Amino acid sequence: MNRETMMERVRAEMPEKRWIHTLGVMETAVQLAERFGADAEKAERAAILHDVAKYWPTSRMELIIREKGLPGELLLYDKELWHAPVGAVVAESDYGVADIEVLDAIRYHTSGREQMTLLDKVVCLADYMEPGRAFPGVERIRELAEVSLDEALLAGFDSTIGFLLAKGKRIFPLTVAARNDLILKIREAEQWQ
Amino acid sequence: MNRETMMERVRAEMPEKRWIHTLGVMETAVQLAERFGADAEKAERAAILHDVAKYWPTSRMELIIREKGLPGELLLYDKELWHAPVGAVVAESDYGVADIEVLDAIRYHTSGREQMTLLDKVVCLADYMEPGRAFPGVERIRELAEVSLDEALLAGFDSTIGFLLAKGKRIFPLTVAARNDLILKIREAEQWQ
Repeated sequence: MNRETMMERVRAEMPEKRWIHTLGVMETAVQLAERFGADAEKAERAAILHDVAKYWPTSRMELIIREKGLPGELLLYDKELWHAPVGAVVAESDYGVADIEVLDAIRYHTSGREQMTLLDKVVCLADYMEPGRAFPGVERIRELAEVSLDEALLAGFDSTIGFLLAKGKRIFPLTVAARNDLILKIREAEQWQ
Repeated sequence: MNRETMMERVRAEMPEKRWIHTLGVMETAVQLAERFGADAEKAERAAILHDVAKYWPTSRMELIIREKGLPGELLLYDKELWHAPVGAVVAESDYGVADIEVLDAIRYHTSGREQMTLLDKVVCLADYMEPGRAFPGVERIRELAEVSLDEALLAGFDSTIGFLLAKGKRIFPLTVAARNDLILKIREAEQWQ
């Protein structure tokens, strides 16, 4: 499917405000990919599709989680997490995306995971810091992203976990695993400097 | 082993300051046990022993973790976590404690765990709020502990996770699991009120 058709179809899946967010993630993901040496075309494709299932009815997402054998623990956590792995399924089945790197970047764009790829990080960070985002700490994330993909993403995960703490909400274990893994990677990199 | 001998031996394992902390945890654990219907004698025994391995050399703790088949992931996380499961091993082997509830309360007093028992909660919370503790938020934990063991313990875990976030340190997954589980329990209890 070509880029324009894909964009048109994804746009029809969401309200205008979310489409503007998607355009912001596309732009930022391409910039970050170029800055940190990821594949900019893949980053853009993942960004176009990352929220494709965001406005699907919960029941439709739940059906896909069950039928496609996605991790069942998702159903025990906030529904906000569901659209990412469901989006990866939809990207493959309805948009013909076969590239596992692009699919994984969509799948893990909200939760993160251990051993995140460069593309995972670029898309996840772009989602945190695209120009339309305005939450406490986003400026700091943008500053860090000028120099370090890992440090900026760590600040992103910190903001998510801090938000959940303050709200008395549960924290998805994979996000903690992603953050723990990033901290180890940053420390290892520092040792070699 | 009688109470006095146990106390004497544990006291010899730590500096005076930590022994005073232990006396505080004993006192608070008994109070909390009486308030929330746990076994006060077991709570006191777990409190006496909870930090028995706190000042052991890292290498000695590591040996026990490896030889006794304690969860290997401990070794990947902060050494501050090690003394709790090692303490449970020592309580059994050197102090003759056979009661699994007491041993588990020692084992999980720092990390927490999913499905914490009443005794686990009492000892873990006592460790957070004994009279000698003075960290941001401890007064709030003490206030909550007047009325709700779960809410107070949740505030304790929140303070730990918030501290680790602020310090850029990794978060032990079991603590997140313990907190997530507590939040579910609190929500379920609220639904029945």
